[in-house]
Amino acid sequence: VNTSLLLQEIAEQPGVVARMLTTQVAHITQIADAIRAANPRFVVIAARGTSDNAARYAQYLFGSHNGMTTALATPSLYTADLRTPQPAANGQLQPSLRDALVIGISQSGQSPDIVAVLHAARRDGALSIAITNDADSPLAQAATHVIALGAGEERSVAATKTYTAQLTALAMLSSCWRLGALDPALAALPAAVQAALAAEPAARTAAQALAPAERCVVLGRGFHYATAFEAALKIKELTYLLAEPYSSADFKHGPMALIEGGFPVIVVAAGAAFKSEFDALRDLLAERGATVVALHDAANPARANEHTIALPEALPDWLSPIASIIPAQLMAYHLAHARGHNPDAPRTISKVTLTR
Amino acid sequence: VNTSLLLQEIAEQPGVVARMLTTQVAHITQIADAIRAANPRFVVIAARGTSDNAARYAQYLFGSHNGMTTALATPSLYTADLRTPQPAANGQLQPSLRDALVIGISQSGQSPDIVAVLHAARRDGALSIAITNDADSPLAQAATHVIALGAGEERSVAATKTYTAQLTALAMLSSCWRLGALDPALAALPAAVQAALAAEPAARTAAQALAPAERCVVLGRGFHYATAFEAALKIKELTYLLAEPYSSADFKHGPMALIEGGFPVIVVAAGAAFKSEFDALRDLLAERGATVVALHDAANPARANEHTIALPEALPDWLSPIASIIPAQLMAYHLAHARGHNPDAPRTISKVTLTR
Repeated sequence: VNTSLLLQEIAEQPGVVARMLTTQVAHITQIADAIRAANPRFVVIAARGTSDNAARYAQYLFGSHNGMTTALATPSLYTADLRTPQPAANGQLQPSLRDALVIGISQSGQSPDIVAVLHAARRDGALSIAITNDADSPLAQAATHVIALGAGEERSVAATKTYTAQLTALAMLSSCWRLGALDPALAALPAAVQAALAAEPAARTAAQALAPAERCVVLGRGFHYATAFEAALKIKELTYLLAEPYSSADFKHGPMALIEGGFPVIVVAAGAAFKSEFDALRDLLAERGATVVALHDAANPARANEHTIALPEALPDWLSPIASIIPAQLMAYHLAHARGHNPDAPRTISKVTLTR
Repeated sequence: VNTSLLLQEIAEQPGVVARMLTTQVAHITQIADAIRAANPRFVVIAARGTSDNAARYAQYLFGSHNGMTTALATPSLYTADLRTPQPAANGQLQPSLRDALVIGISQSGQSPDIVAVLHAARRDGALSIAITNDADSPLAQAATHVIALGAGEERSVAATKTYTAQLTALAMLSSCWRLGALDPALAALPAAVQAALAAEPAARTAAQALAPAERCVVLGRGFHYATAFEAALKIKELTYLLAEPYSSADFKHGPMALIEGGFPVIVVAAGAAFKSEFDALRDLLAERGATVVALHDAANPARANEHTIALPEALPDWLSPIASIIPAQLMAYHLAHARGHNPDAPRTISKVTLTR
């Protein structure tokens, strides 16, 4: 009997995604109508940790499908006055959110600095949305609209099902904002997420290859910049291996110097848009003898010198991250085991982090 | 005779900063007038590598001193159409830059994706500024206004003097935008940058402590979030040690699990605003037996269990990053030597990186 909470919650994801699609569509359509009426000039998203990786997905999604510049908020600017000397006469100067759509993303909805950004949105008359697993949380109470994830209690310290639920909420919101309704492509999501669970044997094999490492880098681009960040975060949380995420474009600006024989590199080689870049990168990694784990799709075929994990094919690129994170979650789970750690009880960290 | 190009360019920084202050003030004052006339709603900065770390500094500076939400651009959204299937009828959908102030930062001014963001600014009628060491570069030609760094040719692959020149340009711009003139505090910059060079012995000692490591994390917050990123990038470029930068706030969301006895952590503990947070962090790191290098100021005093590097005191927090990066540059230089690498010739990377 498998008693891992983490593995149970990973397996719940097809159901969580299916439930979001059916129960939230009417509500999200209404929120999208309100966004169009507000006609924002830009989007600001406040989030930390795993939720910040969902925000990275939204940056590319809103940018490419909704034509919106999307900023990741710097929450401390809403809680700390960084001016020196501080002016005696007036209160804290905060970044203006006038004409912005402001979105707060948080599993717990508790973090004071994220809530502070939503309060600033209200002060500046900006429309705001809370995406949270707790519809009664301070974050939900501070927002104009709430999208409840309905993922059920997440008992593992490492977030999995709330991440895929957050991405699904963002994909639904983008679609309804763009089309006034769900894009039909979303209907394929639950089956694709289910299919992604079949990557477990390949994920386990890749985990064995990574087990002796002390550090690795995780590369992705476009929509899968988020996948690279979230895969790296799961690895750090669960396996204590230092995994640094990078855009494969930024990686060329210096960090490429790291790569030598045996250096472990995880590449999320997915989507046709960056195929030639991924090809050149994988050529270089092979030439330098790096230990490569490639999460790849049909557009970026498996290579003999790599440990490969095939990603589900049924989704367009903009939805692919919702299924593609699952093999990475499974890899992190097996890597924890291979390194002798209990994935249900990571040391030092707690489920709800209150940052100010 | 010291023949290291890198060390020569590190030592040139007081002069570079002093020259920026005297030669560019009239020009930057005019640009600031144009910004006020344009009345932007938000700022978008396009940059990669070291220049992107200058953009991180600007996020906090414009947010706290100019009341502006500042987004780091996702340049690939201006060069690649990420929609699938791609609509047959219309061209690429790009994030709107209407009502934005758009700033491109690049030492060389060559990178096509950064130039593409400035072209999009022109298309959308947005005011744009190029901050570059080459006033004839494609980036400069695409912008409404150009701030030339005048740092002289940077021959080292690892950027140093162009980074401090970029920060100085941004600090001058923020000041002129806010006050219509340079803040008198800027006058202390050249001497503070000169004083920072005196940290070399402490930086060398800290480098010895880090030399055996295979990975480390670099923590900072607020204005020094940029310092943490740039210190980590210098270490990766020059020493092939995997150095991951983190906001000390985000670090609590998972990555804290990494820390065990002997894990190397570099903390940029500077500024009064986050002193209580740094105190708690340093307590925890001591408890876990981490190997800590603290770049600290008077507000965050040295601790006996840490390798400490004192930062110059003459600057307000918002200018501190311009001097505080210098001990980190020196530490990376000595770390390269201690690990047997030539800091003037990092492997695999080149000075001008053309990303699309």
